[in-house]
Amino acid sequence: MSEKETTRTEISELGEFGLIDLLTKNISIKNKSTIKGVGDDTAVIEKDKEKYSLVTTDLLIEGVHFDMIYTPLKHLGYKAAIVNFSDIVAMNGNPQQLIVGLSASNRFSVEALEEIYSGIYVACEKYGVDLVGGDTTSSPSGLFFGVTAVGEVAKDKIAYRSTAKSGDLICVSGDLGGAYMGLLILEREKKVFQENPDIQPDLDGNDYVIGRQLKPEARLDIIKKLEDAKILPTAMIDISDGLASEILHICKSSDVGCALYEEKLPIDATTSGAANEFGLDPTTAAMNGGEDYELLFTISQSDYEKIKNISNISVIGHITDKSEGSNLISTSGHAVEIKAQGWDALRKE
Amino acid sequence: MSEKETTRTEISELGEFGLIDLLTKNISIKNKSTIKGVGDDTAVIEKDKEKYSLVTTDLLIEGVHFDMIYTPLKHLGYKAAIVNFSDIVAMNGNPQQLIVGLSASNRFSVEALEEIYSGIYVACEKYGVDLVGGDTTSSPSGLFFGVTAVGEVAKDKIAYRSTAKSGDLICVSGDLGGAYMGLLILEREKKVFQENPDIQPDLDGNDYVIGRQLKPEARLDIIKKLEDAKILPTAMIDISDGLASEILHICKSSDVGCALYEEKLPIDATTSGAANEFGLDPTTAAMNGGEDYELLFTISQSDYEKIKNISNISVIGHITDKSEGSNLISTSGHAVEIKAQGWDALRKE
Repeated sequence: MSEKETTRTEISELGEFGLIDLLTKNISIKNKSTIKGVGDDTAVIEKDKEKYSLVTTDLLIEGVHFDMIYTPLKHLGYKAAIVNFSDIVAMNGNPQQLIVGLSASNRFSVEALEEIYSGIYVACEKYGVDLVGGDTTSSPSGLFFGVTAVGEVAKDKIAYRSTAKSGDLICVSGDLGGAYMGLLILEREKKVFQENPDIQPDLDGNDYVIGRQLKPEARLDIIKKLEDAKILPTAMIDISDGLASEILHICKSSDVGCALYEEKLPIDATTSGAANEFGLDPTTAAMNGGEDYELLFTISQSDYEKIKNISNISVIGHITDKSEGSNLISTSGHAVEIKAQGWDALRKE
Repeated sequence: MSEKETTRTEISELGEFGLIDLLTKNISIKNKSTIKGVGDDTAVIEKDKEKYSLVTTDLLIEGVHFDMIYTPLKHLGYKAAIVNFSDIVAMNGNPQQLIVGLSASNRFSVEALEEIYSGIYVACEKYGVDLVGGDTTSSPSGLFFGVTAVGEVAKDKIAYRSTAKSGDLICVSGDLGGAYMGLLILEREKKVFQENPDIQPDLDGNDYVIGRQLKPEARLDIIKKLEDAKILPTAMIDISDGLASEILHICKSSDVGCALYEEKLPIDATTSGAANEFGLDPTTAAMNGGEDYELLFTISQSDYEKIKNISNISVIGHITDKSEGSNLISTSGHAVEIKAQGWDALRKE
């Protein structure tokens, strides 16, 4: 009786961001308390005279975002919380509350759900967040999370995607591409295991990148370091879909271009090693691999002296005029237009 | 490599509320801004001097909460928004923002998602709510919603579940059991249709109860009427799982008992008629049928004169001392202990 359609456009034709643009193009804001709706890491809502409230929801779907074959339940709970904390942090905010919606099929026991929750609690404890609610329900098959984090930020400290200016320096925390290489290794060992369950997975030497995939962190430490150094990012986003995708979000939202320098990209030796093993360019892993949950942000050039000695932050390029486009300057000096080929849960289907 | 367990307890052994109790029993609150965590219709977070912020998440899962065979896509979007607005209203609050997480398999086209969103927008428009964000992703099969609503309430107006007092009058808005009868009729016609697709569904005369199932409303009108009449509910909850389940939540949270009067239960003639057709006691539909999204609330006896002439509100009983238990006084005068046999998405599996 439903699902009657005259034309049919496949979701994969649009991809996640095209679909979101289409579905949200007619939004009109009615409440004074709504400061920022769709289009940044979180929604921004008026809180009090000094602060904004930040709210964000992420879905994690078995078979799309995680594979139970190689994801320990406790890690899964931890990650479900962290990816939401990371969105709050990307607004330069502090996560404070978490609401967990969890739908599980009867394949999962009570003990399994307790294990997932134990990971959620570890994340909450570590980040000073309160678990304040949720919804728990059955599912016809598989495991599904709908997790919401609430946080706050001082009004004069909020970092949007849309406020980068030409000349700003582009910075990134930590290192990139590791989570993606961890995923490739886990997928490889899954195949080996499925073909011959007697063979134990060979994860030797890859602890770092596997940890990056299974147990990411939100970089609350970085925004605290920036605050201590009195550096206010001019724009910020977290890297969930790959550096290429995220810098293009900043450029599009801010109506600017960028120049990133390949030689400046922070890539861990383990990540490079694993990439080489897979015949992949480590730069590709860094640019298009997702789920590192590092922070990508821009700062005023005048803050360079303050930032250059902060550990775990790399200056990787600068914002340009829009007319110059968005380019990666390769180690050999060629400018290559940046395209988002990253993790896109809707195109990958 | 994961899911290794020594003992295995089935989720269905605990049910939704037993499971939530177990998973949340060790919560400790760390943030001053967290006013109320798990255990009410929404989480309650400090906003400013006068107001609290309210946040709630509900999951809607295809095959558990809705069936695409008889659920129009637009209605589905509308309902996904409404069930969350209803939670905000049940705290005596105003919904203001909505965040929609939507996961759809490639069975769903872009046009189908647009139709779902059109229902979400109608709900937002009607209730003065802004759609401020979301997450859209693929799913291996089926359609999942993880929807979050944000609202606010004046601190001196908030209505918890836990503050009903012995002697308070128990009130309910609208009428009960209709959504459940609508569901039974839709399920019956689905079976007929599946056995013989040439037979058109026979929904004649049942528009009202089918509408109750497919297009519920959040009773924002009722809390406005109460405010206009200067009545502050002493406790409130929305009826998503059936009157029996909800009154027991109030009694447990408030550490009181109750007496409900069968003859006072508001049941529409269409609901009674449909119940009779199915050989069901209409009282059973009212007590244990879910998804009416009416408000169940308690008021001080001294407010009786103010409430008795407000339309769409019925006084159905009173709060008693805990020692008297929770009872339904039947039309014949017998006291029957109330048990929650209602809609429970985890036991029904």
